[in-house]
Amino acid sequence: MKTKTILAALFCALAFATTVAQAADPLPSWNDGTAKKSITEFVAKVTKEGSPDFVPPAERIATFDNDGTLWAEQPLYIQFAFALDRVKALAPQHPEWQTKEPFASLLKGDVKGALAGGEPAIFQIVMATHTGMTTVEFENIVKDWLASAKHPKTKLPYTEMVYQPMLELLGYLRENGFKTFIVSGGGIEFMRPWTEKAYGIPPEQVVGSSGKLKFELRDGKPVLVKLPQLNFIDDKAGKPAGIQQHIGRRPILAFGNSDGDLQMLQWTAAGSGMRFMGLIHHTDAEREWAYDRTSSIGKLDKAWDEAQTKGWTVVDMKKDWKRIFPYEKD
Amino acid sequence: MKTKTILAALFCALAFATTVAQAADPLPSWNDGTAKKSITEFVAKVTKEGSPDFVPPAERIATFDNDGTLWAEQPLYIQFAFALDRVKALAPQHPEWQTKEPFASLLKGDVKGALAGGEPAIFQIVMATHTGMTTVEFENIVKDWLASAKHPKTKLPYTEMVYQPMLELLGYLRENGFKTFIVSGGGIEFMRPWTEKAYGIPPEQVVGSSGKLKFELRDGKPVLVKLPQLNFIDDKAGKPAGIQQHIGRRPILAFGNSDGDLQMLQWTAAGSGMRFMGLIHHTDAEREWAYDRTSSIGKLDKAWDEAQTKGWTVVDMKKDWKRIFPYEKD
Repeated sequence: MKTKTILAALFCALAFATTVAQAADPLPSWNDGTAKKSITEFVAKVTKEGSPDFVPPAERIATFDNDGTLWAEQPLYIQFAFALDRVKALAPQHPEWQTKEPFASLLKGDVKGALAGGEPAIFQIVMATHTGMTTVEFENIVKDWLASAKHPKTKLPYTEMVYQPMLELLGYLRENGFKTFIVSGGGIEFMRPWTEKAYGIPPEQVVGSSGKLKFELRDGKPVLVKLPQLNFIDDKAGKPAGIQQHIGRRPILAFGNSDGDLQMLQWTAAGSGMRFMGLIHHTDAEREWAYDRTSSIGKLDKAWDEAQTKGWTVVDMKKDWKRIFPYEKD
Repeated sequence: MKTKTILAALFCALAFATTVAQAADPLPSWNDGTAKKSITEFVAKVTKEGSPDFVPPAERIATFDNDGTLWAEQPLYIQFAFALDRVKALAPQHPEWQTKEPFASLLKGDVKGALAGGEPAIFQIVMATHTGMTTVEFENIVKDWLASAKHPKTKLPYTEMVYQPMLELLGYLRENGFKTFIVSGGGIEFMRPWTEKAYGIPPEQVVGSSGKLKFELRDGKPVLVKLPQLNFIDDKAGKPAGIQQHIGRRPILAFGNSDGDLQMLQWTAAGSGMRFMGLIHHTDAEREWAYDRTSSIGKLDKAWDEAQTKGWTVVDMKKDWKRIFPYEKD
């Protein structure tokens, strides 16, 4: 009883401190402008009790794409950089890769040549590097890689290539009773080992692409083996299906950055009541990258048109973000 | 600011009230005995900060089977009663069912005859009643059915056929920082419309069997159509896989009642640190039903043996539960 009472008192002190802290700008890395205003106005409306726009906390579901929305996706999807490093690490166990595409090109450092094989080549690379081990083994492989791998441009750990304004947005939404989810085309088992630390998003709130799993008893000890079979592709029309399967509730706020997010935004928009649909537009070639309609990574074309037609919020990275990465000084 | 401060104060008052309320028995419908003791001792240990058994709140994942663990599954799985009622409701649109099995037998009230076709027959009945509509339409069908359907023995709504001691356990765990999940062989879309109200478990914490979904734009409005294709069977060896796909964290407590829960319990037991594995044994033919090793519904045989070998908690319904259903008086 005594400890509980002290804890409750501490908790209350914290609650009050939070209340006071909210007087400060919750989104300091966002420049004042229509994007920031559209976010804060939306949150104010859906959290105002008694207002017609009020949404009960349990229904405040917010979904975020990951690559290009929460962290950088250039010059290569980070998960693909992981796969390439794994091919190099596993090559000694696969002498046949020296002459077998797409591995042979990769091992010579010729990524473009390896990708000439298109989707089947990518599929082969992903299967060779993401399957065959147990889920626990794979989690450790991802953690070990992230602890040492560096982004080719900034030479920083990949987990520092996250967007500071989006970290602030995630925190701001959670402070306002939202439950924040990742809904990404990336691998669910690749993201979960680090999303809690990087974004404050726990594993059970990560939705992504996945392979099939097989339960086995090995020497009486149960394991889940990652099989070389696709289970679900959480991209494009897969995103609303992934949201329904995992969350079972329609988001009231969704953020993406590419055509892969269009259906998630459409699905979010089609609910009743207040809705927020946002797109990050990569416009800052100096501090980050600038790309949209013709990019092979993070192509933003149809979703951009639809955002303009329907009045969704488009965040202009260069104009709207005071700071992009946490490592930048103010 | 002002509203926020008042809310924070109210919240604190509630927090203190909860602290005081915890002095009372949190499991009043459980008789004193080894089962109750094993639960409260486990919770005390994993929540005691500074103890070697302490588990941080984020990792306090608890998973519960549904049929036979949280609500009754006799004389027929409730979802199957739903399917039978749907066959009757849909029969006018399917004149061919009058002569086609398994529907012809069902429409004559001969459930046993219909089930003579085994799994293929059940599959046909489920597909005919659970697919073809949108997810929103299906949710409404389930809600409408639950609002009027009655249990054949008690004549009560099915949502009153939940176990009072388990409701208390769910609440007790949540008060102690656990996140409670359902991990059921039942259909995920069948459970989600009512689990929040019945158990305090929100849709995103329900894991179950599912069919494939298809995203479509109908007159410009996005829908998810329930396809007549299986996506995932969340039973037996599927339960650990379902837990990994949806939650991405191993439970520290799991409760089931049949051999369909064995692998979930094995998976839970195989984690490091303190673990709680529980089985409900249906022993009360008077107040509920008595069945185990030879039952076609909720067969408890191998899991029971393993529970005894490994010292898992087996709840004897007749002995351990003071009250079974909420409608019973003390």
